[in-house]
Amino acid sequence: MSRSVVLHVPAPDRWREALSPHLPDVTFVDLDHEPAEEVEAAIVWKYPVGALDRFANLRLVQSFGHGVDFLASDPGLRGVPVAKLVDPGLTIAMARYVAHAALDHSLLAPRFRATQADRAWKPKRIAPPGVAAVLGLGAIGSEIARVLDVLGFEVRGWTRSASDRTFAHSHGYDALGTVMADAEVVVNVLPLTDATRGLCDAAFFAAMEAGSLFVNVGRGGTVVEPDLLAALDSGRPGHATL
Amino acid sequence: MSRSVVLHVPAPDRWREALSPHLPDVTFVDLDHEPAEEVEAAIVWKYPVGALDRFANLRLVQSFGHGVDFLASDPGLRGVPVAKLVDPGLTIAMARYVAHAALDHSLLAPRFRATQADRAWKPKRIAPPGVAAVLGLGAIGSEIARVLDVLGFEVRGWTRSASDRTFAHSHGYDALGTVMADAEVVVNVLPLTDATRGLCDAAFFAAMEAGSLFVNVGRGGTVVEPDLLAALDSGRPGHATL
Repeated sequence: MSRSVVLHVPAPDRWREALSPHLPDVTFVDLDHEPAEEVEAAIVWKYPVGALDRFANLRLVQSFGHGVDFLASDPGLRGVPVAKLVDPGLTIAMARYVAHAALDHSLLAPRFRATQADRAWKPKRIAPPGVAAVLGLGAIGSEIARVLDVLGFEVRGWTRSASDRTFAHSHGYDALGTVMADAEVVVNVLPLTDATRGLCDAAFFAAMEAGSLFVNVGRGGTVVEPDLLAALDSGRPGHATL
Repeated sequence: MSRSVVLHVPAPDRWREALSPHLPDVTFVDLDHEPAEEVEAAIVWKYPVGALDRFANLRLVQSFGHGVDFLASDPGLRGVPVAKLVDPGLTIAMARYVAHAALDHSLLAPRFRATQADRAWKPKRIAPPGVAAVLGLGAIGSEIARVLDVLGFEVRGWTRSASDRTFAHSHGYDALGTVMADAEVVVNVLPLTDATRGLCDAAFFAAMEAGSLFVNVGRGGTVVEPDLLAALDSGRPGHATL
């Protein structure tokens, strides 16, 4: 018996072709499929609000990416299990990006590039690795924390929920200032939820060290951009990598 | 009974003061100490050729750094045990430096900095991490290999001697081309010995990939600088970090 699965993703034909050999019993259908009762699951990236409400027999929604914010905010999905992708290739790519940004800052690379461009020889002592705070310890945040640890940083993690993550961490908004204290690098890997929307605001940046680096690889909605711009002008943080 | 140890290092007074509480039985003396027979050991950085020959009872020479090339090339020391420093702080500092250079290259950071300076938005796909060849797998080279491995590179090590190092490696000059084949980054961590002097010459660079990165954190004498300059002009390697 054929099973109907909604496939609402970028380049759907390409993905239908790639997935079909692995799921021979599945018929991939569109969001307007009739009869709606046939649809058992949906593989989706961002979709029109309410577009899944008509599928009464939906038993699984698979996000097409790491993000699930568009699913978490869909009131029509209450009770339907939601899964997300965890792609090792994307995870290491993000860890490399953050590692590069953290090292570039910590090793004073912009300063040395400037003196190199001036053909000037100005040695400067590099301080030993300092504290790197990682906010969000999911699949990607944990890998970022692991990589920064290997690179010599003193890693402090922060997560809203208790967990068995490998890195020392503290819980709750109150402790965030503690995690960020003295950090030369603060990495935001947070998902977008009601608890994290606008978390990185003026008060957040005011808790950062002067001259430190803010790296955002989390969802954009967690950062209040006008506050970040004003914070950069004030020097806390000194730099931002987005 | 007091024991005489030659201390020939930069800022000797500072080091005598720091070491004396830990070695209360030791008298630190200079290279011209008399009677020479009293000297049992020497803690030295580069010294005048032959300056240790007069110490007939020398039983240990401690290099003041990671390098031992100035000791290995001293014919007067045949038979005297030689030790070198292995400083975890220096090891991680060098690993961070190499990791930054490798990531900067691999993530096309110079290109993105140029477009950022032009205020231009030019997304470009980053290739998955490629091969990083590490030449020299001593205390520092092994740590560099470990860090590059965690950062997603396919690490290939090379060492002249058989060893139990953690990374796959091959031996001998003949296999060097194999280790370097397809490497986007080649890291030289080699000590200076008769076998490595001038190893990185025109033929060596010709074996590198076009556009790849050569990182030298080994001894300068292993690199034939005019050959490196000519090689950079030819595009193999495309870039060098020294």
